[in-house]
Amino acid sequence: MGKNKPKAVVLLSGGMDSAVTLYIAKKRYDCHALIFDYGQRSRKEVGSAKAVSRMSGSGHIVLRISLPWKGSSLLDRNVAIPREADMAKGMIPSTYVPARNLIFLSYGVSYAEALGARAVFIGAHQLDYSNYPDCRGEFFDSFRETVERGTKRGVSGKSIRIITPIINYTKKDIILSGISMGVSFALTWSCYVGGARPCGECESCRLRAKGFKEAGVIDPLLRDR
Amino acid sequence: MGKNKPKAVVLLSGGMDSAVTLYIAKKRYDCHALIFDYGQRSRKEVGSAKAVSRMSGSGHIVLRISLPWKGSSLLDRNVAIPREADMAKGMIPSTYVPARNLIFLSYGVSYAEALGARAVFIGAHQLDYSNYPDCRGEFFDSFRETVERGTKRGVSGKSIRIITPIINYTKKDIILSGISMGVSFALTWSCYVGGARPCGECESCRLRAKGFKEAGVIDPLLRDR
Repeated sequence: MGKNKPKAVVLLSGGMDSAVTLYIAKKRYDCHALIFDYGQRSRKEVGSAKAVSRMSGSGHIVLRISLPWKGSSLLDRNVAIPREADMAKGMIPSTYVPARNLIFLSYGVSYAEALGARAVFIGAHQLDYSNYPDCRGEFFDSFRETVERGTKRGVSGKSIRIITPIINYTKKDIILSGISMGVSFALTWSCYVGGARPCGECESCRLRAKGFKEAGVIDPLLRDR
Repeated sequence: MGKNKPKAVVLLSGGMDSAVTLYIAKKRYDCHALIFDYGQRSRKEVGSAKAVSRMSGSGHIVLRISLPWKGSSLLDRNVAIPREADMAKGMIPSTYVPARNLIFLSYGVSYAEALGARAVFIGAHQLDYSNYPDCRGEFFDSFRETVERGTKRGVSGKSIRIITPIINYTKKDIILSGISMGVSFALTWSCYVGGARPCGECESCRLRAKGFKEAGVIDPLLRDR
């Protein structure tokens, strides 16, 4: 059935946002998930991403990539994960990974071009987010132009679409949308720290908790404790 | 001495173009070469890149990256390297690697941001080239905008410069410039095929030969035969 749909590559992280994005994408596309093992300290992410991919019925590739220069508290265990949200101060927190979405999207475009896929989906959003510059609409707008100019498909007038379906969703919207599509959030993982259970204090845990609270739903990951 | 210069990341492939670019960059920057081992069938490239880096006195990192979807005759040994130049027909040859420069530049920007480097140098040029869309000035212009919008440095108003010093050089210009700076072209490698000696027939060998002929210089790689 999925064979009649056009192909799409979906960047999948193991978190809630990309899980919901995958479910939105699979309504209209034959989805191929791309999962990155990039040395993130939270080793659960990759396993969660694989579980989400399986749940959705999509195939996936796990790509191991190396960022030996680190430059982020998500990669460098000698730097503490911030416990207070820096977002309120308008700062970019130390969890920012230099050019991460640029690298991930570039791989996504490469995979899409080789696969003959029409689109690359990414679950970034710019409302309840961590102030990362590579999650904002104006970054994706420019990236689309870059892909149009710099790929074989782009210069042939059949550019690969970069689709950000939840860019203007709040965390509450993401959760309610996911529930309506049958996403099992118990399989997803958000905590940055890398323990066996969510720390509850890092920005990612806080944003997740805020979303579930506003949605009036109990987080299944915490309910199972 | 190099310590007083600002830092730059230089993408280094083992070919002539990036070697000359490194020598241009090192006049004004403390250079950190970034070399990609991306499964290219020409296994000599990485060794040549390291040799060029050593010759220049720069440090380097070799990054192994995986493009399991291939999509290029440079990666897929089941697809022949074209012997006739497709450029004349205005086509993009099968040696095009999907989104390669986009991926390489994205890593370069990530490294530069973590290192505190001011610039990323890439030795692309759009005159005597293979019609690759990701070697043209308009691609780099758009990529610059993307970096400005999508990185911490970019949104702080101190964006990383993407410098293409030989973008409008011919192969002849590249060779004469390299000779004037002391680049040893005997250390560089251009052939796509991956044999012990240059095949002399692939587009990369042809462009190299054309350059040396126009420059009125004998290619030291062939002289040593």
